[in-house]
Amino acid sequence: MTNHRIVLASRPAAEASVDNFRLEEVPVPAPADGQVLVRHHYLSLDPYMRMRMNDAKNYAEPQPIGAVMIGGTVGEVVESRHPGYAAGDKVVGMGGWQEYAVVDGGQAGLLRKVDATRIPLAAYLGAVGMPGVTAWVGLIHLIQPKAGETIVVDAASGAVGSAVGQLAKSRGCRAVGIAGGADKCAYVVDELGFDACIDYKAHRDFASLTAALDAAAPKGVDGLFENVGGRIFDAVLSRMNAFGRVALCGLISGYEGESLAIANGRLLLTQRLKLQGFIVSEHMPLWPQALQELGGLVAAGKLKYRESVAQGIAAAPEAFLGLLKGRNFGKQLVKLI
Amino acid sequence: MTNHRIVLASRPAAEASVDNFRLEEVPVPAPADGQVLVRHHYLSLDPYMRMRMNDAKNYAEPQPIGAVMIGGTVGEVVESRHPGYAAGDKVVGMGGWQEYAVVDGGQAGLLRKVDATRIPLAAYLGAVGMPGVTAWVGLIHLIQPKAGETIVVDAASGAVGSAVGQLAKSRGCRAVGIAGGADKCAYVVDELGFDACIDYKAHRDFASLTAALDAAAPKGVDGLFENVGGRIFDAVLSRMNAFGRVALCGLISGYEGESLAIANGRLLLTQRLKLQGFIVSEHMPLWPQALQELGGLVAAGKLKYRESVAQGIAAAPEAFLGLLKGRNFGKQLVKLI
Repeated sequence: MTNHRIVLASRPAAEASVDNFRLEEVPVPAPADGQVLVRHHYLSLDPYMRMRMNDAKNYAEPQPIGAVMIGGTVGEVVESRHPGYAAGDKVVGMGGWQEYAVVDGGQAGLLRKVDATRIPLAAYLGAVGMPGVTAWVGLIHLIQPKAGETIVVDAASGAVGSAVGQLAKSRGCRAVGIAGGADKCAYVVDELGFDACIDYKAHRDFASLTAALDAAAPKGVDGLFENVGGRIFDAVLSRMNAFGRVALCGLISGYEGESLAIANGRLLLTQRLKLQGFIVSEHMPLWPQALQELGGLVAAGKLKYRESVAQGIAAAPEAFLGLLKGRNFGKQLVKLI
Repeated sequence: MTNHRIVLASRPAAEASVDNFRLEEVPVPAPADGQVLVRHHYLSLDPYMRMRMNDAKNYAEPQPIGAVMIGGTVGEVVESRHPGYAAGDKVVGMGGWQEYAVVDGGQAGLLRKVDATRIPLAAYLGAVGMPGVTAWVGLIHLIQPKAGETIVVDAASGAVGSAVGQLAKSRGCRAVGIAGGADKCAYVVDELGFDACIDYKAHRDFASLTAALDAAAPKGVDGLFENVGGRIFDAVLSRMNAFGRVALCGLISGYEGESLAIANGRLLLTQRLKLQGFIVSEHMPLWPQALQELGGLVAAGKLKYRESVAQGIAAAPEAFLGLLKGRNFGKQLVKLI
């Protein structure tokens, strides 16, 4: 059997390009005792991967040159030499950008069996996986929304943002999204049920963007789930109410080296804001509770999501670069079988 | 009897000047039923007053033009028509920039009797008053220091900063101050017992300031009590450890209109920092506990402080402008008798 995989060929000087990746063809290794061979059905592409490509001080180790790109995967056990797994089991893991992975079945957290009858397998990479839990931790645990409050989330049609807004609605909040393009905004409001969505591409300057915010959030903003940074962050900060909370989840506008200055730091004091940067993997005790709620909502059809699916491992680099540009629409996946 | 008082004559266009204040001479009013006449011994001057002089959206109402400048006071009851007070009682209140005040004795929070036998009366405006409680709330409640951690505070020789560092030491932390001038830094280390102090005036650029921080805080910074903003804030942020906490108490560098951009907002995410802006008057439930600890420490000689004392109400504007420039050394007071 042959495994196709994508490795990091070089680090981007500024903007990442397909030249930073290399497709390799290698034999599928046989699992040793205690190991499990998994065939991946889907690979997840997520913005955090961009930061791993840099050799910079960061919250995680940089991705080594020549190593398989890191990434979440769902798939099926094809051969097991570990008593906890059997061929045919559906599993979610961190198999990386490749078709097959051999995983140590005994190491906690590497592999988790999932039920693919109630919930589509791919959802374990999105609404019922890391992005969904990210939304849950940032909104429920950090922002702690109260009914009647206004919650704003940017990258609102994406895997994280779409869950943030729907969870905010479930808590009785006004949910305001920010997304790039009229089609994404229409989806956010009409299909996901947000109260309003602002197309940031239609508001190129601060005055225009804040005027749109004033219309969408007439009582100001109590909670901000921040995925983007830069001018969008500055604009929403200027509309925060006293005692507002900011969950700082990502800064995708700055992943390729742009400045991430916060223009008006004074607001953090004058509005007595609470801001917290977080990474979902550092909140493991919250995962079971989050996954239980998210899984229940998806199974009941109450948590909607959309997927952009690229076909085949060779398509992963282009799909990933598109994700960084906002060309995806919903959760970006690569289908591998 | 004649009352001398300082009113806000005009709002500063940028930097405040003596022309923004006016000295007035008026008769001392007689207290009505339920009221108390207080003669002020000391007036407190504090940086927050500068923000009240502007007509800007802020956490408090702007100071009205023509009204007596707001300010904390300690003094003695000279006439009481309220059963809770008697002539001779020592009281702390918000009497403003004037020699006498008539206060409603029945309204909670306006006036508080204090014991001036164990603790000097003026200390109720400093270490055992609003500045001390500010230090306590920001450090103990928000930063929550753990033994062995490194805590940095700027404006370290001031009323708030000096208490922050000494409280940090009492919790087993490494306390690092930042202050303007070699004399202030020597005092912070030699008399207050901080482990190190950086003279920011001797480090004019980012590289020099961060090199000094690396020497003073070799294990990085776990907690930052921020009073200043601007380049000092940026430098300390760059040295924060993962999961660091920032209590944002003041931004004195920007009170006269300078930019308060945070240059590298990315650090808030990559270091998973928690930042909270706060005002001590919004944490009233914590005051009794804080005052008890602070009063005990001052009475025992374990919480040291220094005072800059101007003489007479007419000297208040100059003393206040000096405070904004860092020309005071320790708690800035105006002695009125």
